[in-house]
Amino acid sequence: MEGSIRCSANYVPVTPISFLERAAVAYRDNISVVFGDITYTWAQTHQRCIKLASSISQLGVCLSPRHVVAVLAPNVPAMYELHFAVPMSGAVLCTLNTRHDSEMVSTLLKQTEAKLVFVYYQLLDIAQAALEILSKTTTTTTTKLPLLVLISECGHPSPPHAKGTLTYEDLIAKGTLEFEVRRPKDELDPITISSTSGTTANPKSVIYSHRGVYLNALVSIILNEMRSMPVYLWCVPMFHCNGWCIPWSIAAQGGTNVCLSSVTAEAIFDNIFRHKVTHMGGAPTILNMIINSPLRKPLSGKVAVMTGGAPPPPDVIFKMENLGFNVTHAYGSTEAYGPAAINAWKPEWDNQPRDAKAKLKTRQGVRHVGMEDLDVKDPHTMKSVPADAKTIGEVMFRGNTVMCGYLKNLKATQEAFKGGWFRSGDMGVKHPDGYIELRDRSKDTIICGGESVSSIELEAVIFSHPAVFEASVVGRPDDYWGETPCAFVKLKEGCSATADEIILFCQNRLPPFMAPRTVLFADLPKTSTGKTQKFLLREKAKAMGSFFKKNISSL
Amino acid sequence: MEGSIRCSANYVPVTPISFLERAAVAYRDNISVVFGDITYTWAQTHQRCIKLASSISQLGVCLSPRHVVAVLAPNVPAMYELHFAVPMSGAVLCTLNTRHDSEMVSTLLKQTEAKLVFVYYQLLDIAQAALEILSKTTTTTTTKLPLLVLISECGHPSPPHAKGTLTYEDLIAKGTLEFEVRRPKDELDPITISSTSGTTANPKSVIYSHRGVYLNALVSIILNEMRSMPVYLWCVPMFHCNGWCIPWSIAAQGGTNVCLSSVTAEAIFDNIFRHKVTHMGGAPTILNMIINSPLRKPLSGKVAVMTGGAPPPPDVIFKMENLGFNVTHAYGSTEAYGPAAINAWKPEWDNQPRDAKAKLKTRQGVRHVGMEDLDVKDPHTMKSVPADAKTIGEVMFRGNTVMCGYLKNLKATQEAFKGGWFRSGDMGVKHPDGYIELRDRSKDTIICGGESVSSIELEAVIFSHPAVFEASVVGRPDDYWGETPCAFVKLKEGCSATADEIILFCQNRLPPFMAPRTVLFADLPKTSTGKTQKFLLREKAKAMGSFFKKNISSL
Repeated sequence: MEGSIRCSANYVPVTPISFLERAAVAYRDNISVVFGDITYTWAQTHQRCIKLASSISQLGVCLSPRHVVAVLAPNVPAMYELHFAVPMSGAVLCTLNTRHDSEMVSTLLKQTEAKLVFVYYQLLDIAQAALEILSKTTTTTTTKLPLLVLISECGHPSPPHAKGTLTYEDLIAKGTLEFEVRRPKDELDPITISSTSGTTANPKSVIYSHRGVYLNALVSIILNEMRSMPVYLWCVPMFHCNGWCIPWSIAAQGGTNVCLSSVTAEAIFDNIFRHKVTHMGGAPTILNMIINSPLRKPLSGKVAVMTGGAPPPPDVIFKMENLGFNVTHAYGSTEAYGPAAINAWKPEWDNQPRDAKAKLKTRQGVRHVGMEDLDVKDPHTMKSVPADAKTIGEVMFRGNTVMCGYLKNLKATQEAFKGGWFRSGDMGVKHPDGYIELRDRSKDTIICGGESVSSIELEAVIFSHPAVFEASVVGRPDDYWGETPCAFVKLKEGCSATADEIILFCQNRLPPFMAPRTVLFADLPKTSTGKTQKFLLREKAKAMGSFFKKNISSL
Repeated sequence: MEGSIRCSANYVPVTPISFLERAAVAYRDNISVVFGDITYTWAQTHQRCIKLASSISQLGVCLSPRHVVAVLAPNVPAMYELHFAVPMSGAVLCTLNTRHDSEMVSTLLKQTEAKLVFVYYQLLDIAQAALEILSKTTTTTTTKLPLLVLISECGHPSPPHAKGTLTYEDLIAKGTLEFEVRRPKDELDPITISSTSGTTANPKSVIYSHRGVYLNALVSIILNEMRSMPVYLWCVPMFHCNGWCIPWSIAAQGGTNVCLSSVTAEAIFDNIFRHKVTHMGGAPTILNMIINSPLRKPLSGKVAVMTGGAPPPPDVIFKMENLGFNVTHAYGSTEAYGPAAINAWKPEWDNQPRDAKAKLKTRQGVRHVGMEDLDVKDPHTMKSVPADAKTIGEVMFRGNTVMCGYLKNLKATQEAFKGGWFRSGDMGVKHPDGYIELRDRSKDTIICGGESVSSIELEAVIFSHPAVFEASVVGRPDDYWGETPCAFVKLKEGCSATADEIILFCQNRLPPFMAPRTVLFADLPKTSTGKTQKFLLREKAKAMGSFFKKNISSL
């Protein structure tokens, strides 16, 4: 419009770096990060990040914007700081999964062409082995191996390490506060890369932008109903979707990041009471660990917990709330910067009986306020499914908090965005009120004699058996039925149940075709983010061969 | 980065229209707007807005994007709906100050080239007289007068009006839900226009963008610490900075907008108790009205109040908090979409004595989380003033929540943005902790014998006198001193004080040169947003002539 100007007074590419700069003033003396006996204030975190950024930019690794700096570390203070310092140096942060093996780490370092890799001392062997592999597979002499920077144990002298190895604290000590922080020229410039969480065997590297992170960090404050200066307990690994973008939310609100050396029920309860935790997040596995811990005790103040990654069984939600946790169920993916949908609670649901309430909370819900659109669609016609709670379609979403794409995999990006929506691969239904509910990932749905069996539904029923600690259901190949449901069950300590009891329990609660034909008792293999690795269970089920052939055909 | 794509799956121009669409699903049956006996749900508000947008776009007024639709109405439900419906029709909403006279309304209608003007029935005379003026000054036959749409009293039959006059409810009734909502092609496209609040005689028309409004609405949720479904009491006029962008925040959180027919202490207390209000906003005048009302009573639940527009006197804050209000002090301007800075409270301030606490809260504070930068600078060199709480400079800010510019006044826009910052015209200091504090608007500072007297400081002292209801200080011309402080004071009902008593009271509490030389008892002229119109007081002071000449020179 006539009279308008676009200039630095009224237009700035958005970046979460500005949250840290503000926190250093508004929350200067508030605790930013606590880890055991180590604490920093926001003024300190800000200064450490500037100095680290200055050192990174001066390392002579020919770092230019869009060059990658990788990190292999758990949720320690250094991991938090790198979420600011690397973008402030002008580079892109690649967070590596701490459960990756050397092979995978070397693959990702190669794919991202990382110039630097920060490594926590406990993971040094993995990283060194990865560099070893990389040095063998890198043929051209011009390609340099990434420089390794050691992150020592917080507050302890460095462990013995090869002379000349750079250390994290050295870089900070050598840095200067005079450094001019580098900001994105375009807010769609990349800020981080992380690999999908590994429910498939082939992780893809997802690119996030400054814009997406900025918006998602603001929205996460709202979704988590965080007031200023929240105290956040870190159970979600920061390498996973950058901890749902919450590292940046906490800076925006001047809160306290409580880091854990290991995520155990003991550490969780201990830190909640010690630091007056207000918020946390975690996969349903973490929730399950909490409610089954002998150390569990009612909280003295409410703790808001956001859970996601898998639909939480109703029983888990109910028990968590009994302890004083306030559970919010979010649904998303690495491609959505973490959450895409949220189970926004309706006041009229308050009057429902306990079980109905918990079941309502297992719905994935509606798009969050930063996501533009969320729908369940026929993946071929792209038409919305009717809101009848029955017709299954693919869950799709679109908006500014959807990834830029998969690094160096344009084909995969194009496939994921085909039709102008992100195709999640998850199958679900839409309720008459517009809320969506997952039925399964497309490949997790078991097709038994032409009928779809939702593994999620079946798992929730098995889980409600009093002796069951965890359950996961996959399809077992079958000559007659195609597939039959096969349940892997872990029992609670000191409890017992037979396969037949579990099957009967399900038959009494579900249409008969949905009950498992096979029940195996075992520990469930997990990804580092607490998701059950169904592809491993599927391999086991496959190896057992046809249920029909072995059990029925001989009759 | 290689592998990235920008498409509708991951990039959408941001617009607050999406908040309403989400509220219609997530908060479908929650009350969106309440006004006396009238209530709407979010599903209803959404449908009414779509229908209204469809009718607006079909009115044959040659409406295209960037055409202006004006509204002259108080905070009634129609005013709220127009904040969505006009942008959804593809047009730009111009909110007119309800205290403007016909002359000013006609000037603004002409300046904005409004095609339509929605008028609340109580303001019909003003609007019709404005159109009358406009028809006389519009010479070319091609320029059509804006079409008038009557907003009748809610829930009442239309008052008698000329046959053929369009009414608001008719437009909604005739609209269709099939209408395809128009979205901005570029998020920097204009969404609203509002005039500056009139502390000067020449209001300028400020343009807001979809991007600025979207960001500011999200940030306002965070600043006001709104959980989902807040209940917001409307005391800030929506025509003023679009109610600090809070109409859109409430939609984003699925809250309830409580509209008032008139802003009185009685209506405020009545509605707070009736609707369980959680949040409200208002100029210090509103707060003053609340604490001095004989109807005041302690609240049953906390109500968060954001105040701004003028620095609240410490005593007002203290008394409000005693009643159960939680006061947050924000500072901004029409050019900043409302707030630019916020007095982010520091935990260590909790232990300060009562008066020190209230005084700390009168500081303007730090930039809010959506503003990029806020500083106090020498307006000539553009250098930051030292953070010494003494050196006065001009308050400047920049970021995405700064206006696009002044409509058809490129020169004014360029001046306001000179040096790449928005120059507020307010003078202030920076404290050692980085918090800013206003000393005055540049033209409100009184220069008495070469010494600067802050009218704000002097007003706060006069205000603390037990008999004083309100006070405003301006410079009175003086042949000897240049200017001397002249105080206009309104006393509380039933209280008395003499000019000499007030002067002595100030002399006992301030350096002698700061005490007023003249004290006059009078009602203070106010703008519609509760700011004292100092230019009127300045004219009065000027008319009195030199204090020195009249009082001293004769000695």
